[in-house]
Amino acid sequence: MNDVAQLRPVGWVRSSVADPGAAARQGDEGAPDVVVELVPDVAPAAADLRPGDELLLLTWLHLADRDTLAVHPRGDVDRPVTGVFATRSPDRPNPIGLHRVQLLEVDGPRLHVSGCEAVDGTPVIDIKPVLGTADER
Amino acid sequence: MNDVAQLRPVGWVRSSVADPGAAARQGDEGAPDVVVELVPDVAPAAADLRPGDELLLLTWLHLADRDTLAVHPRGDVDRPVTGVFATRSPDRPNPIGLHRVQLLEVDGPRLHVSGCEAVDGTPVIDIKPVLGTADER
Repeated sequence: MNDVAQLRPVGWVRSSVADPGAAARQGDEGAPDVVVELVPDVAPAAADLRPGDELLLLTWLHLADRDTLAVHPRGDVDRPVTGVFATRSPDRPNPIGLHRVQLLEVDGPRLHVSGCEAVDGTPVIDIKPVLGTADER
Repeated sequence: MNDVAQLRPVGWVRSSVADPGAAARQGDEGAPDVVVELVPDVAPAAADLRPGDELLLLTWLHLADRDTLAVHPRGDVDRPVTGVFATRSPDRPNPIGLHRVQLLEVDGPRLHVSGCEAVDGTPVIDIKPVLGTADER
């Protein structure tokens, strides 16, 4: 890329949580299981995913503010304003969400995964396996 | 995003390795230390990063093929063709690289970080702290 690159959704998060104000701050802080509904033309990329796999979902946090460079961590005004690269704030120049999940069930193009705080309708931009040690790669 | 979202570089990898064919496959497989040269207008987002921090660099693997949906893992033709979401292949619909590094030194807008396999000139699109346990967040 020179100045910009264009992301394309590879799927969408389907969650019982639609309101960012009601979402958990991280997947292991009470977030519900969700479905990743794959875009049909990229579904072959998911052909070898199996229940039990530990995965990283990358999402595009489409409700975030891209001009924010510093925040109170976790919205706690008692904590000093901190540059966003030292936080997991969704507000950042490229609002990419990173979510560690376990694959629970594969139902055609619908991947059921464990706790994920991304709200309903969040675009999924990549899926990667959690890396094992070097001799398992 | 509806169909696409536009990424903007927040920095660039400066590495002694320019040839993808000569690059390590992962950061812990012999990759050199590199510099992340921040774009000046986002440098405030990095204000609170400190040497010793464990970070995730997200990069845009600009030399990758976005139409590839399956590969031989690690280019090994003895391994069966596998959907890219079950691999760390750079060739994938949105070629985002995920690199765990340690911050070694901060020199103005230049962040010196430990072993990273991204080649010289790779755009950096986000920097995140590695998450500690829930009570450390």
